[in-house]
Amino acid sequence: MRPPFDPTLYLVTDTGLCRPRSVADVVRAVVAAGVTAVQVRDKHASRRELLALTRTVQAAVVDHPGVAVVVNDAVDVAVLADADGVHVGQDDLPVEEVRALIGADRHLGLSVSSAAELDAALALPPGTVDLVGLSPVWETPVKPDAGPALGPARAATLATAARAGGLIAVAIGGITLDRAAEAAATGVDGICVVAAVCPEADPAGAARRLREEIVRGRLAQVAR
Amino acid sequence: MRPPFDPTLYLVTDTGLCRPRSVADVVRAVVAAGVTAVQVRDKHASRRELLALTRTVQAAVVDHPGVAVVVNDAVDVAVLADADGVHVGQDDLPVEEVRALIGADRHLGLSVSSAAELDAALALPPGTVDLVGLSPVWETPVKPDAGPALGPARAATLATAARAGGLIAVAIGGITLDRAAEAAATGVDGICVVAAVCPEADPAGAARRLREEIVRGRLAQVAR
Repeated sequence: MRPPFDPTLYLVTDTGLCRPRSVADVVRAVVAAGVTAVQVRDKHASRRELLALTRTVQAAVVDHPGVAVVVNDAVDVAVLADADGVHVGQDDLPVEEVRALIGADRHLGLSVSSAAELDAALALPPGTVDLVGLSPVWETPVKPDAGPALGPARAATLATAARAGGLIAVAIGGITLDRAAEAAATGVDGICVVAAVCPEADPAGAARRLREEIVRGRLAQVAR
Repeated sequence: MRPPFDPTLYLVTDTGLCRPRSVADVVRAVVAAGVTAVQVRDKHASRRELLALTRTVQAAVVDHPGVAVVVNDAVDVAVLADADGVHVGQDDLPVEEVRALIGADRHLGLSVSSAAELDAALALPPGTVDLVGLSPVWETPVKPDAGPALGPARAATLATAARAGGLIAVAIGGITLDRAAEAAATGVDGICVVAAVCPEADPAGAARRLREEIVRGRLAQVAR
């Protein structure tokens, strides 16, 4: 039904943090260095600009067919760009409606920030949502309007429940290089990064180090 | 292909200006009093809220099958709500893309604020755009980011060119009851109103008076 989606190291783009480089330039560098999926997010862009931005990101990953490109929030843009999927928040269009618009062959992610929101996601008809973003694990300057931090222990509990319900679970919010291993050790399928990659002088190097930390965190989890 | 669209008195909704009444309550009152089409516009609403709002407006006009309900800007919402059409600005998604998303059976309107923008609209493949909103005819507090006012003389020139090219032309921007006849006398197919209806204590009465002014303006134009 849906193409495979590898959430191991999931980059969420921030146009401002990528400057002076373009988002596409940063994406091109990091997908060759271990980023497995890209979510195009730009809350300041018009839909017209977001469509153009999405297409530049799609072109940047064209040599990496396993790397999914997902559009944040803008369902119309995702369909027009023929993106691999959409990621929405609790205030965006309801996920049942989004699923109706994007059809069965696209990935759909949803941010959840509490057990109640996760329970609601798990109660949806199977196949509505593919992934939940546990958000925010830590406080983040990138999204100051995000709710209170879950912390890694609650994120681990939610990740277990999400995965038991057949959903992909990723952790997002405040995941720096220093915290990447701890985030991965919660048992999520992957971690989302924004500020740990976009503003880095060497984003490819940052992606490689993050991948190493993910391995370290997963090993630590298994060893527990 | 597309359902008929009567632009004679085209209400663009403003949620704030309708308060304390709901948008749907105002719409229900005015479609019984001569409003011929409704555009749901709320720049402050999330897409989720806009979808819910659109559905309340559609329910409010259900007894008036000739009254089209158009969604401003949000193509995804228009498709999900199965609205009669979409209206976009120059900074929204490109109209060729919007047409691809909405299919052939929905109305598509585009705001134009200069001869160059109108020429671009007229150069599109036939059937891309149905209507142009000549905007703003006068300065308006409702949309302070609108460009400089066209004035009625330039609006008349643009209306003539638009209609000669097969497009519906409506005037929008600062059209009060006092100016409705002058706006109608430019030769447009209809006038758009926001602040002349939404905040009125008696919106149905305002709509009836606007219809009278449109007749007066059209007669004045014919008499010239």
